[in-house]
Amino acid sequence: MERIPAYVQEVENSLSAQKFDDQPAELYEPMAYILSLGGKRLRPALSLAACELFGGEAQKALMPALGVEVFHNFSLVHDDIMDEADIRRGQATVHKKWNRDIAILSGDAMLVKAYQYIAQVDATILPAVLACFSQTALEICEGQQRDMNFESREDVSQAEYIEMIRQKTAVLLGAALKIGALCGGADEKSADSLYQFGIDAGLSFQIQDDLLDAYGDPKKVGKKPGGDILQDKKTLLMIYTKELDPLGFKSLNQSTFVNEESKVEAWCDLMIKSGAKAKAEAERDRLLQSALSALEAAQGENQGLKKELAAFAQWLSHRDR
Amino acid sequence: MERIPAYVQEVENSLSAQKFDDQPAELYEPMAYILSLGGKRLRPALSLAACELFGGEAQKALMPALGVEVFHNFSLVHDDIMDEADIRRGQATVHKKWNRDIAILSGDAMLVKAYQYIAQVDATILPAVLACFSQTALEICEGQQRDMNFESREDVSQAEYIEMIRQKTAVLLGAALKIGALCGGADEKSADSLYQFGIDAGLSFQIQDDLLDAYGDPKKVGKKPGGDILQDKKTLLMIYTKELDPLGFKSLNQSTFVNEESKVEAWCDLMIKSGAKAKAEAERDRLLQSALSALEAAQGENQGLKKELAAFAQWLSHRDR
Repeated sequence: MERIPAYVQEVENSLSAQKFDDQPAELYEPMAYILSLGGKRLRPALSLAACELFGGEAQKALMPALGVEVFHNFSLVHDDIMDEADIRRGQATVHKKWNRDIAILSGDAMLVKAYQYIAQVDATILPAVLACFSQTALEICEGQQRDMNFESREDVSQAEYIEMIRQKTAVLLGAALKIGALCGGADEKSADSLYQFGIDAGLSFQIQDDLLDAYGDPKKVGKKPGGDILQDKKTLLMIYTKELDPLGFKSLNQSTFVNEESKVEAWCDLMIKSGAKAKAEAERDRLLQSALSALEAAQGENQGLKKELAAFAQWLSHRDR
Repeated sequence: MERIPAYVQEVENSLSAQKFDDQPAELYEPMAYILSLGGKRLRPALSLAACELFGGEAQKALMPALGVEVFHNFSLVHDDIMDEADIRRGQATVHKKWNRDIAILSGDAMLVKAYQYIAQVDATILPAVLACFSQTALEICEGQQRDMNFESREDVSQAEYIEMIRQKTAVLLGAALKIGALCGGADEKSADSLYQFGIDAGLSFQIQDDLLDAYGDPKKVGKKPGGDILQDKKTLLMIYTKELDPLGFKSLNQSTFVNEESKVEAWCDLMIKSGAKAKAEAERDRLLQSALSALEAAQGENQGLKKELAAFAQWLSHRDR
């Protein structure tokens, strides 16, 4: 991996050079704030990579890449209101630092700003780029709503869960790649292959995220294990456990525990014993292979970059932190 | 006026034919609901009128016109959360009928939907249409933020007030007209004249709205007079009163009243005595004339429709209900 860190740096530099200092300040300061809190900038970096994969200069994808990143941060601002989250990336969330109304409105303005960045592409590809972006934005709203609906449901199926994480996480990776590919001059078919690469890599990434939450090394992951278990989240691990060992699932579900650690430990054990952990790992790996096949199918002329994207997907789905 | 009511009907028919029944229902039902509550559909009707003014078929502006209406309704859904309003068009607001989170998220999805409609124009004009729409959307957010900021300020100037209502009300009328004009084949200069017509007509309309709130016939306006006075709103009438009779203003501001009616009556009297009402009426009429000049400057070949648009602006700024 050599190019991707360079793309991340390019995005970071370009983002810091953007001015979000218009008036009224209450509308624009929260944008500058949330964008300054960091984040891995993986999505916009992928746009640049996809652009160069097809022989375009990364520069051509830079503005729409920033659009993807601004959109991502808009969704964080609004999600944090809904989740009543106080902390984002170690700092106060926008609705905590300012207030609910400012978070709603500056979020709205960020969504519009995202479209302004996205629109900065050649007129010939604008309709396709715009269609991809709007469809993606709508699906992310759908995914967030499904996630909220799951909280009050006990019968979430595997297919429903996968569809939710596809919409909530994977489509923006897919769109970042597809838009970058279009900017780089990719034909529609290759751009769609890149999209599919992003979807499958994103799903694989999210399953690894669920696995890390239960089994990750706290020193590497940076938080106590079992957050999802303690919040009774319907992750794929939970759904598989219920499917593979319904009695064990029911019994644990009705148990009381002396403390949080013992609850997490009991569930982690059952997830292994029932075969749920192994099944989730197998699904994660299947999706990674599927992502790599989609990447292979894309025409991209830059073979070195293709290898780097493959290695990146590999890392996403097997990272330990 | 013959064509404009027909455009309104065309918009209404087309809007009822749109399906907002995707899944999850919690995301799409609020869209169908708020759009079914009615409204005058003036903005999209103006898009169709502007399109035909330049010889285009109204049909060509229909989808972006719906985009303008969907955007307007998105802004109502989010504004109602911020204003903590329970009632909109005689029915429960979205956040009351469902909840805050659904109102935030379905509002977000409506903003994206609006872009999907707006994008349904000829590829040749898409960059210009999109630029106009995004700029407008951003200004509407700015106007809403300014309006919220004014609540805690006593020193709002006339210029600040006019800028706020320009952004909150007038720019969407201007954008509806400009986008329609572009769909109809107008050159950039004529499209900008139509935009200016919408801005000035919108400002004139808003000043008449403030006048009606204080002096309108309750039987015609459909609500008790003096709502703005009772909420201590910084309308143009108030700003002029303070400017023209600072002592009278200060004295009333410090008075207590036996009931709401006597407070409204005292202020209405002072607004007349100080000359504030007459000054607001003069400003309303000046803006109307400015709107009519801008309309005149546009090239539009359909002279009958031009007359109708002029009459419409006249009605907007002198309506009694």
